[in-house]
Amino acid sequence: VRRYIVNKMGDDWIFLVLLGLAMALVSWTMDYASAKSLQAYKWIHGELKGNVPLQYLAWVTYPMILVMFASLFCHLVSPQAIGSGIPELKTILRGVVLKEYLTLKAFVAKVIGLTAGLGSGMPVGKEGPFVHIASICAAVLSRFMSIFSGVYENGIHNQDLLVCACAVGVATCFAAPVGGKSLTFSWHTAPGCAVGVGCCFGTPLGGVLFSIEVTSTYFAVRNYWRGYFAATFSAFIFRVLSVWNKDAVTITALFKTNFRMDFPFDLQELPAFAIIGICCGFFGAFFVYLNRQVVLFMRRPTALTRFLTKHRLIYPGAVTLIIATFTFPPGFGQFMAGELMPRECINSLFDNLTWTKISGSPLPPGLGRSAAWLHPQVSVFVILLLFFIMKFWMSAVSTTMPIPSGAFMPVFILGASFGRLVGEIMATLFPNGILFDGIVYRILPGGYAVIGAAAMTGAVTHTVSTAVICFELTGQISHILPMMVAVILANMVAQGLQPSLYDSIIQVKK
Amino acid sequence: VRRYIVNKMGDDWIFLVLLGLAMALVSWTMDYASAKSLQAYKWIHGELKGNVPLQYLAWVTYPMILVMFASLFCHLVSPQAIGSGIPELKTILRGVVLKEYLTLKAFVAKVIGLTAGLGSGMPVGKEGPFVHIASICAAVLSRFMSIFSGVYENGIHNQDLLVCACAVGVATCFAAPVGGKSLTFSWHTAPGCAVGVGCCFGTPLGGVLFSIEVTSTYFAVRNYWRGYFAATFSAFIFRVLSVWNKDAVTITALFKTNFRMDFPFDLQELPAFAIIGICCGFFGAFFVYLNRQVVLFMRRPTALTRFLTKHRLIYPGAVTLIIATFTFPPGFGQFMAGELMPRECINSLFDNLTWTKISGSPLPPGLGRSAAWLHPQVSVFVILLLFFIMKFWMSAVSTTMPIPSGAFMPVFILGASFGRLVGEIMATLFPNGILFDGIVYRILPGGYAVIGAAAMTGAVTHTVSTAVICFELTGQISHILPMMVAVILANMVAQGLQPSLYDSIIQVKK
Repeated sequence: VRRYIVNKMGDDWIFLVLLGLAMALVSWTMDYASAKSLQAYKWIHGELKGNVPLQYLAWVTYPMILVMFASLFCHLVSPQAIGSGIPELKTILRGVVLKEYLTLKAFVAKVIGLTAGLGSGMPVGKEGPFVHIASICAAVLSRFMSIFSGVYENGIHNQDLLVCACAVGVATCFAAPVGGKSLTFSWHTAPGCAVGVGCCFGTPLGGVLFSIEVTSTYFAVRNYWRGYFAATFSAFIFRVLSVWNKDAVTITALFKTNFRMDFPFDLQELPAFAIIGICCGFFGAFFVYLNRQVVLFMRRPTALTRFLTKHRLIYPGAVTLIIATFTFPPGFGQFMAGELMPRECINSLFDNLTWTKISGSPLPPGLGRSAAWLHPQVSVFVILLLFFIMKFWMSAVSTTMPIPSGAFMPVFILGASFGRLVGEIMATLFPNGILFDGIVYRILPGGYAVIGAAAMTGAVTHTVSTAVICFELTGQISHILPMMVAVILANMVAQGLQPSLYDSIIQVKK
Repeated sequence: VRRYIVNKMGDDWIFLVLLGLAMALVSWTMDYASAKSLQAYKWIHGELKGNVPLQYLAWVTYPMILVMFASLFCHLVSPQAIGSGIPELKTILRGVVLKEYLTLKAFVAKVIGLTAGLGSGMPVGKEGPFVHIASICAAVLSRFMSIFSGVYENGIHNQDLLVCACAVGVATCFAAPVGGKSLTFSWHTAPGCAVGVGCCFGTPLGGVLFSIEVTSTYFAVRNYWRGYFAATFSAFIFRVLSVWNKDAVTITALFKTNFRMDFPFDLQELPAFAIIGICCGFFGAFFVYLNRQVVLFMRRPTALTRFLTKHRLIYPGAVTLIIATFTFPPGFGQFMAGELMPRECINSLFDNLTWTKISGSPLPPGLGRSAAWLHPQVSVFVILLLFFIMKFWMSAVSTTMPIPSGAFMPVFILGASFGRLVGEIMATLFPNGILFDGIVYRILPGGYAVIGAAAMTGAVTHTVSTAVICFELTGQISHILPMMVAVILANMVAQGLQPSLYDSIIQVKK
C-alpha cells in the first residue's frame, strides 16, 4: 500500500509540474502579446497627436477591430470559450457534464480571443478565462497521462486535478510580464522598480485560496497541497522566463506598493476603512445586479435583440465604440483618466503620493502616469468620482460582450478608485495626519485604494481570499488588519443582498 | 428558509465574536504574565553578576520551580491538560469522544501550566496548548449559547465551531504583547520598532490555514470563512488592548524583519534555499523520530521509569536541570547563545546584519541581543552549529515533559538557526554578493533564517501554511518564492520518512 501511494504521488507530481509549466508558458505568451498590443495602441495614439479627428478614429477603431475579431473567432471556433469560465467550472465540479467545454478547440478560441480582448484595453478581466484555460490544460494532460497510469481514468481523481488547475489558473493570471522596459510602465524606470525582480510575481497562495473559495463547498486538504505545489512551480517558471528574456521583458511585482512600514495606519482610521468595506459591499451587490440585468435584457425576445443575435458583431462593436468614445483622452476621457490602460490605473491608484497635495500648473516631475488623474481645471475628487461611475457601468456592460472575459480585474480597479477617493477625502480632512501617542500618522491614500480593491472584489465574488491576493500583488502585508475588516464587512453586506457574480451567471444560464 | 439562514448566521457571528474576544483576552493575559516572568528571570540573573555560583543557582532553580509547579498543578487539576492538544483535537474532530477533554478544569490547568512553562524559558511552544484552550472556550461557549438557540445542540455544527476555534487558537498564539517597553526587547527602542504598531500582530490568515491543514482531511469552505472572521476579530481586540495599555505594554509585529525590498534574493541563490528545504525535511523527520523514541523509552516498564512514574516531579525537574545547566550563560551557554530567551533567539536570528562581517573586540553598538551570538574566541559558525545541535535534543526532550507544551516554536527556532547557518556560510562564500545583470545581490542571512524556520516547521507538522505564518510574523512577503520552494521540498522529504509530529503522538498514545 505504501509503495502504491508513493508511486501515485510521484505521478501526481509529474502531472502538476507539467501543468504548472504549460500554464506558465501559455500565460506568459498571452501577456506578452497583449502587452505589446496595448503598447502599439498607445504608440499610434501618441503619434497622431495634434490631429484630433484622426486620433479619435484610431482610438476607437483599434479596440473595435480587436474585440470584433475576438468575438468572431470565438463564435466560429468554439462558442464555449465566451465568457468567464468560473461559473461553468463550478457546475462541472458539482458533477454536471458540460459538453465540449474542456476541448482543445475551446482552448484555442479562449487563448486567441482573450489575448485580443486584453490587447484592446477594454475593461475585461482575465482571471476567469485563465481558470478555464488551466482546466482545459489539466483535462488534456490527464487524458495524456492515462496512457501511463490508470489513475487518470478515475473520475473523482480528475475532479481533484481540476480543482488544482483552477488554482494554477488564478495564480498565473496575476503573474504578468510587462512588455518593454520603458513604454507602458515608463514612470517605473527607477532602478528599484523597473527591474523589480524578486518580490512577488504571481499570487500562488491567494490563487489557491481564491479558486477553492469560488469553486468548492467542501474540499480535500490534499488538493490545497497540490494546488500550492503547481502554482509555486508555475511562479518559478515565470521567474526563469524573465531571466532568459532579461533584455526584452522584465517581471515586476505586479502592482508593487512602497508604503512606509512602521506606521501604515492608525486605529482611528479604522472607521474609514469600515465605511469602505460597507460601501464596497453595496456597490458589489449592485454590480452583480446590473450585470444580470444587462444579460437578461439581451435575452428578452425583442426586435432589437433578435437583430443583434442575427448580426453578432454589432453588439460588441457598439459597446466598444461607446466605451472608447467616452474614454477618448482629448475628449471626455480627460475627466476620467481615460488614457490609462487597466494595469496603469491600478499602478497609479496604488501610488505613494497624495494627489490633493500636488498643485502647480506644470506638474512636478516624478508623477509618472499618475499625472493623468490631475486636471488643471477639475478637482481630483471629481475625476475619481467620474472614473468610478463611468467605469462601473462600462465594466458591468463590457463583461457581457460575447468574448472571453472575466470581471475580477475591472471590479478590482473600481474598488481601488473608490478606496482612493475615500483616501483622498481623508487626506484633505486630516492634512497633517492623525496624531496619536506622539506619532503622526500621515494618511496614505494608496493604502485606502488597496483596501477598496480587496473589499470590492471580495464583495462581488463572495470570497475573503482577495485580501491574500492583494498582499501578494502589492508585496506588502502592512495593511492586513484593516483590509481583513473591510473584506469581511463587504462580504457580510454583499452576501445578504445578492448571490455572487458566478452564482448569478449560473442562475441566468439555467 | 432565507430568514432562517440569516438568523443562524447572526447567531454564529455572535458566537465567533465572543470566541475571538475571549481568546484575545486569555492569550493577552497569559503572554503578559509569562513575559513578566521571563523579565524577572533575566533581572535576577543580571543582578547576581559577578557571583557565578549564586548566579548558576538562580539560573537553574527558577525554571525548575516553574516547570515542577506546572507539572504538579496539571497533575492535580486535570491531567488532560498535559501535552500539546492538537493530536487530541484531531482525534475529536474525527468523531472520537475524549472524556473530560473540553472541561473548565482542563482550561484552568492548561492556562496556568502553560503560563508557568513559558515563563521558565524552556524550549516549549504554545501553539498546541492555545488550540486546546480555544477549543475549550468554544465548547463552553456553545453550551452557553444552546440556551438561546437549538443549533448549538447539533453535533455536526459544534464540530464546525471547533475547527474555527482551532483557527483562533493558532492565530492568537502568535499575537503576543511584549512586556515592558525596554527590558526584554531593549534593542528595539528605535521609535520605528518599539511602538511598531500597525504592521502585523497575530497571524489570522496563517492561523486559519494551519489549523485546517493540521486538524482536517476534508473541510467545509464556510469554516474557512468563520475562522477568518473570528481570527480577525481577535486580532482587532489585541490591537485595542495595546492602545489601552500603551504606556505599559506595546505590541510589535512579532518578529518584524526589515530586509530591503527591491532585490531580496537572486535566482542563483535558489539552490541554497532548496538545500535548506531538503535538509530541513530530514531534520524534521529526525525530530519526530527522536521525540517518539523519548516518549516510548519513558513508557517502557523498567525500574527507572517505574521510579519516575511514582515520583512525577523528578522527570521534569531533571530535564529542566540539565537543560538549564547547558544554557547557563557564563558556562557552556556562552558557546550556544544560552542567555537568549526563545523569542529573543528568533528576533536576533532574523536580524538584518551579517554576523561574519562583524568584528572587533568591543562589539560595535546597535547589535542589541544579537551580540550573544558573537564570541570573542569562537567562530559564529561553531556557535550556530552548537546551538542547533544542543537545542535539537533539548526541544525533542522538553516537549515530552508532563506540562502543557507544544513543539511549534522550538522547531521554528531550530529551523531559523539552521537557515541562518547556511546564510552565514553563503555570505562568507560570496562576501560581495552575487552580481547579476548589473545589480549586486547581497546575501541576507536573516532571509535564510526565515526560510529555514518555515521549512523546518513545515516538515515537522507536514503543512505548507507555515509559509503564510512566516509572512505574517515577519510582516514581509519578499521571500515568497524561495520560501514556498523550501517548504514544499521539506514536506516532500519529511512526508516520505515519518508521519507528522501530531500523527506520531496519536500513534504512540493509541
